[in-house]
Amino acid sequence: MAVTIKDIADKLGVSISTVSKGLHGAPDISESLRTTILDTAIEMGYKTKSMRRENNKKLAIFIEYIEYENPTDFGYELVLGFKQMAGHDKWDVKVIPITADFQMQEKYDAFMLKNGFSGGFFMGFHSNDEWIKRMSTTTIPTVLLDLYIRRNPNVALIGTDNDESFEYSIEHLSELGHKKIALLNGPEGSMAAVSRNAAYEKYMTKYGLELNPSLQQYGMYDEECAKQYVSDFIDAGVTAILCGSDHIAVGVIKECFKLGYKVPEDVSVIGFDDLPMAAKNRIPITTIRQDRGELGKSAYVILSSLVRNVAISKSLMHPKFIKRSSTGPCKDRQC
Amino acid sequence: MAVTIKDIADKLGVSISTVSKGLHGAPDISESLRTTILDTAIEMGYKTKSMRRENNKKLAIFIEYIEYENPTDFGYELVLGFKQMAGHDKWDVKVIPITADFQMQEKYDAFMLKNGFSGGFFMGFHSNDEWIKRMSTTTIPTVLLDLYIRRNPNVALIGTDNDESFEYSIEHLSELGHKKIALLNGPEGSMAAVSRNAAYEKYMTKYGLELNPSLQQYGMYDEECAKQYVSDFIDAGVTAILCGSDHIAVGVIKECFKLGYKVPEDVSVIGFDDLPMAAKNRIPITTIRQDRGELGKSAYVILSSLVRNVAISKSLMHPKFIKRSSTGPCKDRQC
Repeated sequence: MAVTIKDIADKLGVSISTVSKGLHGAPDISESLRTTILDTAIEMGYKTKSMRRENNKKLAIFIEYIEYENPTDFGYELVLGFKQMAGHDKWDVKVIPITADFQMQEKYDAFMLKNGFSGGFFMGFHSNDEWIKRMSTTTIPTVLLDLYIRRNPNVALIGTDNDESFEYSIEHLSELGHKKIALLNGPEGSMAAVSRNAAYEKYMTKYGLELNPSLQQYGMYDEECAKQYVSDFIDAGVTAILCGSDHIAVGVIKECFKLGYKVPEDVSVIGFDDLPMAAKNRIPITTIRQDRGELGKSAYVILSSLVRNVAISKSLMHPKFIKRSSTGPCKDRQC
Repeated sequence: MAVTIKDIADKLGVSISTVSKGLHGAPDISESLRTTILDTAIEMGYKTKSMRRENNKKLAIFIEYIEYENPTDFGYELVLGFKQMAGHDKWDVKVIPITADFQMQEKYDAFMLKNGFSGGFFMGFHSNDEWIKRMSTTTIPTVLLDLYIRRNPNVALIGTDNDESFEYSIEHLSELGHKKIALLNGPEGSMAAVSRNAAYEKYMTKYGLELNPSLQQYGMYDEECAKQYVSDFIDAGVTAILCGSDHIAVGVIKECFKLGYKVPEDVSVIGFDDLPMAAKNRIPITTIRQDRGELGKSAYVILSSLVRNVAISKSLMHPKFIKRSSTGPCKDRQC
């Protein structure tokens, strides 16, 4: 049975017209009463008319911390792929860049309810963002890129299969004779980076290669972090460096040249993402392609399933291994 | 560019009419030439008219080793859920029980091509089945229940999130004071069982509980396997047993009673699946629900994405923890 305005009024001991005013933001009730009414409506699973009406189908894409406006940006094809698939099914999609501040001011469920969105797709958020921290109790169908919320049937993760990605990379380097392979990862606060760390350990072990904590470092998704680690890696005898992103790989290659080492003759480097810059780099970068258009499409497929009450938890995409010029045979004859 | 019959004829150096005969099973060419033509067509990505025609949309569900014809069978709701979702999108679904022998006689891709199926969903297969062994090179969009094929963008796994499942179970038992918790799993040849083994180890460790190889056993998905292990578990001081299926749990409960122990007073038992029998057991069984209707729906959602070239690799469903009477507080005062 669908929850009605009368159910909410009965529960709160107020009149139906008061509840109606609260739900529609009328100015003649207090802000605290409005909040109580909205919170109660959400808790009881109330859906506004616009959420129930079939011809007003709205989904939101929330974006924080990643670029999406230009074709070379990480988020561009994600948004495009999502919109393409959603368009086929006649959904209206709104892209909403969002700040940490806004998340403190307005609750996620209330925002969705007030604006008549049936579901949300989140790109670029951190696990300590306010909306993410409260995601374990949301009743709104929600898909998160690279963030996993346990135990809430309304929320699913989408991402690229890191396990398969690292199998490709480490197999490739192993076939080229490399044994000392370092990992310069994204930040430890990134769930994708943590998952790649585990995949690195799994496949280094599987290929009989030695793990060494000093060769396995968390950095940032930028070029700068290479400066801190590359010199130590090379001093330790590393002949190949796996990177958590193409940006990191560009930084690593620059740092190798600065230190007087050639890529790939002295050091092989593998990126992650296959942003357009990876192919255009002076040394075109061998990398793992996350197909962002497909990720966006998949995000829509999963979100529309959640909207239909199919409780998907995680959905991962196959990566592609892209061989370019930044990897080559291990030179060290001890390889 | 779509591959044409002429392309196949050119490649093989035969006439167009010969290729056409081979593809349509005409009796006046040899079986070996027909096989060569089919294999070449498949290799080149040729699609028959019926595969390309929009108004002839056919999907196949292949079933081996599991029951699906009665509402109490594991496969029943899986098939139903799949058919329901597929029906909305006007797909025709054919259910095809299949034997190991048939897989030796006819190749999967050839079978799909000849019969005009656009995609297949596999339930109950083993990793050493002939069709599964060759699945890494198929060009047919395919979804497998609980089987993972790496590196083929045409193939996806669907299953229940075992990690989340074991977190629920071990958290529950830990809160009840249990410390010595055994696992009686499905067979080691089952990918689901291997994944549950890893999840068991992860959450035992997370809750500070001791792992002991003798308390972590692979069995079979039936009642019988309980006879071999329960007595040893209890002798080793075990107060709770996690089972790889509800059938195993029924066997474990029977064996406990036979040995003079009460469930849950002396031993707590948790099943897996939530088949109808779990609720109807003399001691209703606490278990992890795999929502089979949702799994079937999800299988369709993922398969239809693969058909549209969205390369999903894995898709997992949220499980539900179902508390019934087979678990209770740890009696041992040393708990």
